Amino acid sequence: MDTHPLAPWRGLVARAQHRNRSKRHTRYLQLATVRPDGTPANRTVVFRGFVDERNDLRMVTDRRSQKIDDLAHQPWAEACWYFTKTREQFRLRGPVRVVTASVADEAAKALRDQAWQALSQSGQAAFLGPCPGDARQEAALREAAGAHAEQAPDTFCLLLLHPWQVDHLELRPTPQARTVFARHEDGTWTQEAVNP
Amino acid sequence: MDTHPLAPWRGLVARAQHRNRSKRHTRYLQLATVRPDGTPANRTVVFRGFVDERNDLRMVTDRRSQKIDDLAHQPWAEACWYFTKTREQFRLRGPVRVVTASVADEAAKALRDQAWQALSQSGQAAFLGPCPGDARQEAALREAAGAHAEQAPDTFCLLLLHPWQVDHLELRPTPQARTVFARHEDGTWTQEAVNP
Repeated sequence: MDTHPLAPWRGLVARAQHRNRSKRHTRYLQLATVRPDGTPANRTVVFRGFVDERNDLRMVTDRRSQKIDDLAHQPWAEACWYFTKTREQFRLRGPVRVVTASVADEAAKALRDQAWQALSQSGQAAFLGPCPGDARQEAALREAAGAHAEQAPDTFCLLLLHPWQVDHLELRPTPQARTVFARHEDGTWTQEAVNP
Repeated sequence: MDTHPLAPWRGLVARAQHRNRSKRHTRYLQLATVRPDGTPANRTVVFRGFVDERNDLRMVTDRRSQKIDDLAHQPWAEACWYFTKTREQFRLRGPVRVVTASVADEAAKALRDQAWQALSQSGQAAFLGPCPGDARQEAALREAAGAHAEQAPDTFCLLLLHPWQVDHLELRPTPQARTVFARHEDGTWTQEAVNP
């Protein structure tokens, strides 16, 4: 994976994270995908930081979750990240790379391992339990709650969202402020102030 | 529009709204749609209450906004509603009806008028300004900020999301609790506890 200069919206995200750091839910964003049937899906996921020296957002998910099927059919996703204290929103859209246990690329493999090690015990436990969305298996869930694994299990996937467009909206000022950032093929970015 | 009995998840939403009422952002949810190019879109919208005696979620939007194009191609949407205080999430999916100025149905027309009257002055002003997403028109935005209109302008649309499936996830308990509610053709609902 080649490196890229930090995009011009990165400073705005960093500022929002800092100003909203007192709120635990600042780490949560909503990730929209398209289901194989062509309808949209949307769920809250935890933001696990940017990849060093890149503009890619890291998230993790279970290989057995619906979003893996969704991304296999339509790799593009759009994350909606609303910061409640400063009342600003980022919409980040682009393709998502799914890094599974069978990844060949050494750099991606290392990122996946790193993401596993960074999880809390309860975060890891979720990947060691029964299949998400299946009829509830109470005993298996309780057993998994105490489980841990040194190495990432096959169920563990790292998601890398690579934004091609970022839409930043600030609700506080009147009129509201909205800026759209667009990435070009050569990796450069342009930005435009637009009507909210 | 015929009436329906309240769905079994309505009590859970009401409880979440009540318990999180101290947070202004409890009114905000993220609405995912599919763009005409087949990629997903996601943005924060304000929940404007349920339609009386129905399970439909009310939202409003500008006819010139991207989501109107999205819904014309794919009427299904999925709302993701995360409650930060109680740490629970509702995912509500189903078709969205767009109620425009030219609606013939009297009941829907009345709902649209009602939604317009319920907006604050600044909420109304957004519909009286320049086209969302166009290059920023500072003077027009400032002029619109003070505008108001007795009757809903043509730009004003009411959105009615009619859920067919609701996925409720509670992060607090260990193991987490997740229940999926599904609507059937006859209007009845079934529910199932599933693995988180």
